[in-house]
Amino acid sequence: MKRYEAVARAIGERIEQGLYRVGDRLPSIRRLCQEFQVSVSTAQEAYRRLEEAGAVEARPRSGYFVAPRVTPSVLPRVSRPARRPLDVSQWDQVLELVGESPDQDRLLRLGRGIPDLDAATLRPLLRRLSTLHRRAGAQDLNYDSLAGSLELRRQIARLATASGCLLHPDDLLVTTGCQEALSLSLRTLAGPGDVVAVDSPSFYGTMQILKAQGLKALEIPTDPQTGISLAALELALEQWPVRAIQITPTCNNPLGYTMPETRKRALVALAQRFDVAIVEDDIYGDLAFTTPRPRTIKSFDDDGRVLLCSSFSKTLVPGLRVGWIAPGRYRDQVLHMKYVSTGASATLPQLAVAEFIAHGHYERHLREMVRQYQRQRDIMLGWVARDFPQGTGVSYPQGGFLLWLELPGEVDCVRLNARLAEERLHIAPGSLFSASGKYRHCLRLNYAAALTGAVEAAVKRVGEIAASLLVEHAGMPE
Amino acid sequence: MKRYEAVARAIGERIEQGLYRVGDRLPSIRRLCQEFQVSVSTAQEAYRRLEEAGAVEARPRSGYFVAPRVTPSVLPRVSRPARRPLDVSQWDQVLELVGESPDQDRLLRLGRGIPDLDAATLRPLLRRLSTLHRRAGAQDLNYDSLAGSLELRRQIARLATASGCLLHPDDLLVTTGCQEALSLSLRTLAGPGDVVAVDSPSFYGTMQILKAQGLKALEIPTDPQTGISLAALELALEQWPVRAIQITPTCNNPLGYTMPETRKRALVALAQRFDVAIVEDDIYGDLAFTTPRPRTIKSFDDDGRVLLCSSFSKTLVPGLRVGWIAPGRYRDQVLHMKYVSTGASATLPQLAVAEFIAHGHYERHLREMVRQYQRQRDIMLGWVARDFPQGTGVSYPQGGFLLWLELPGEVDCVRLNARLAEERLHIAPGSLFSASGKYRHCLRLNYAAALTGAVEAAVKRVGEIAASLLVEHAGMPE
Ligand SMILES: Cc1ncc(COP(=O)(O)O)c(C=O)c1O
Ligand SMILES: Cc1ncc(COP(=O)(O)O)c(C=O)c1O
Repeated sequence: MKRYEAVARAIGERIEQGLYRVGDRLPSIRRLCQEFQVSVSTAQEAYRRLEEAGAVEARPRSGYFVAPRVTPSVLPRVSRPARRPLDVSQWDQVLELVGESPDQDRLLRLGRGIPDLDAATLRPLLRRLSTLHRRAGAQDLNYDSLAGSLELRRQIARLATASGCLLHPDDLLVTTGCQEALSLSLRTLAGPGDVVAVDSPSFYGTMQILKAQGLKALEIPTDPQTGISLAALELALEQWPVRAIQITPTCNNPLGYTMPETRKRALVALAQRFDVAIVEDDIYGDLAFTTPRPRTIKSFDDDGRVLLCSSFSKTLVPGLRVGWIAPGRYRDQVLHMKYVSTGASATLPQLAVAEFIAHGHYERHLREMVRQYQRQRDIMLGWVARDFPQGTGVSYPQGGFLLWLELPGEVDCVRLNARLAEERLHIAPGSLFSASGKYRHCLRLNYAAALTGAVEAAVKRVGEIAASLLVEHAGMPE
Repeated sequence: MKRYEAVARAIGERIEQGLYRVGDRLPSIRRLCQEFQVSVSTAQEAYRRLEEAGAVEARPRSGYFVAPRVTPSVLPRVSRPARRPLDVSQWDQVLELVGESPDQDRLLRLGRGIPDLDAATLRPLLRRLSTLHRRAGAQDLNYDSLAGSLELRRQIARLATASGCLLHPDDLLVTTGCQEALSLSLRTLAGPGDVVAVDSPSFYGTMQILKAQGLKALEIPTDPQTGISLAALELALEQWPVRAIQITPTCNNPLGYTMPETRKRALVALAQRFDVAIVEDDIYGDLAFTTPRPRTIKSFDDDGRVLLCSSFSKTLVPGLRVGWIAPGRYRDQVLHMKYVSTGASATLPQLAVAEFIAHGHYERHLREMVRQYQRQRDIMLGWVARDFPQGTGVSYPQGGFLLWLELPGEVDCVRLNARLAEERLHIAPGSLFSASGKYRHCLRLNYAAALTGAVEAAVKRVGEIAASLLVEHAGMPE
């Protein structure tokens, strides 16, 4: 046995025995050299082999970690939505998820899109907010400029370089969250009866914009690892008068994939060929598990047809409602829409975020969160593998804090939620993420906050009840 | 001469001599009794006579004040807008007014709709904001409930009784300023090509909503003292498929009138007869110069067809972006619109305002502001009478802090503004307040903040330049 093999086997056995657990950091290369009296290259080779075998995971600048014991052997299937424009429904279910404040009804909401709000690295943001409000006079509470605070737009422009985007502060408008950015974009681009192509499944907030605006959703088949099918999109563009492509290509909500760069580039080319605009939702983009973060579609946009929408709701906190848009060639129309929609945005939250970024706190916070979310993804994957019925498909998120599950058989997650309500649990049923209620056998889970015993128990109960519904269903006459 | 006549004459003479000046408080009844050795009823009769003569003004719970020396002998004319639905334009000019933050370009903006932000009675609000942000953890910056903070909705419902409205907190939704309330309303009620009847002149923010939404404005002739012409509105409703009536009936912006209650009631009846909804903008309503404040149209609404929109932007500060809507029977649709437009609103500003109101600070602040604005209205009226060309029509605001001027002849206020820019002055040209740029010979002035010597000089310059344009124009070949 080669020396590296011996080291690899020893570490592998410890993992098997549960000495190191899923998500744990493994000994550093140096420690390994000391313990086994081997050279650095031998230790490295040992980890490389373990990595190849799927037992450990290397994370840039962090070291080696125990990989989820059961890598998702079953991915969700490529979605097969209806291939024609549809009216959006599902508002009742969305309202159930977002209507109340998170703790109002003491439900453990396992499905909401909320980041970890207990992170210590958020504290400087709270301090800035406090200081700014302490010092503020009423004159600081006047109407702001319509485009938003220049300080903040400068910082956002600076951050955007990490995603390959060269933006001037004037290319940016501050909005009331990403939701307003998306809403302004779609209202600018399309009117009642118009068709918008979307990746599918797709964030329910965007789907509901289509509904409110009387737009039709043309849901495009989407691969859970590489994103929207360009072939299907091309067919759709040939067949329908599509006014815009609405897409979340990086750390997708709900599927967690990041579209490879070549495909992002190809998407821009396709949009150019058919002269159609792209609304790119990048709200989770900064939470990618790779450094540097993936490029945006916007970074490949050379004729201003991409409207990049984002906010600090997932990277920092949702309740400041600070978002932004880089509307490209649609700037004037979007600015007008912004004015009529809410007027200028509140100033002080913008300044607090701008200072937080300027002092390096944002990047520090991101580093922490990315580490935490990646670790917790693996733990959650372990729980799902253990507690859910066999054959459950699971996404493998490349960033963010959301997991997508596809239950086997025809388990109905709306019914599942009704059962869960009795135990004060709640998941986001997949049907929210489709225009017409598809994906009822899918659900979304959140692994952002501390994965306590209570969360573990809750996930377990969801798995058990799902299994029981599966059995009931199997026993039902067709 | 009767004794009261002698007293009245003496006081009148002092006013003539400038001993008491416009807006000054006059001696109390008791002081009058002492000085002239007369009975209370004689002193009261003296003031009553002076009031009748237009020389003094009684203000509830404040006493007697010197009335503006020149009561506006010339009111603006009843507006005569085009009597067919129009597309809205004028965005460029609106952008000039609202695009930049107020001090950014060191322009003295005499025309913006900004309240006095230096008021001492705002301090408790700043303190609450500071305390709330100091104590806040990131969990307080989570998504709020979609309808908005219950504490705030309770307070708004309580305040609404003063305007004759019985509202339950569930009848209210918190919005991002009044602008969002108006925008949600109009988007709920009408779609591209639909016709909306509006009072005219009308707040430019609402007009621009119509433009953005592809709606057509049907501007209804409006009396500068009693508001929208019901006869003209009735005709319009008979003739056009009007989807909504959009109106600011109390302390109107820009005209300052308050529609009499009987007319408000009649308007509701009319809307019922034609089964059309009313969007009532009440943003200046709490700044009425009478106690109790005038009733809202909403208070006469017995079948939920009135959508009442408001905010604290004029009564407190604009930059918190806290507004609300009482959407009546349209609650579900408006809630959906609110979700897709901006999601839940920021929590902490709502809580700060709620506590400010709950502790009685709001009502105290209003009392102060109403006194100040009424006093300053009179001073500003005096300046206008002195400094503007003869024949200038001037509104006589019943509340709020905005004055509407109608220049004689064909003086073009857009040109006026261009001239003013050279002296770093800016007014709001009347054309903003019309769908198609009517009222170019009108302008709006703000008398909210301290009327310093600089403001007096500025108003004087506006008057002089207006006069010079008038002469130029008169000299121009037709
Ligand atoms: C993909 C996506 N886009 C937009 C939003 C809305 O973001 P915000 O809260 O900033 O309005 C969300 C929030 O859930 C989201 O998941
Ligand atoms: C009549 C009227 N309605 C609505 C608004 C917009 O109010 P907010 O700043 O609360 O959005 C204004 C502000 O200028 C206004 O004058």
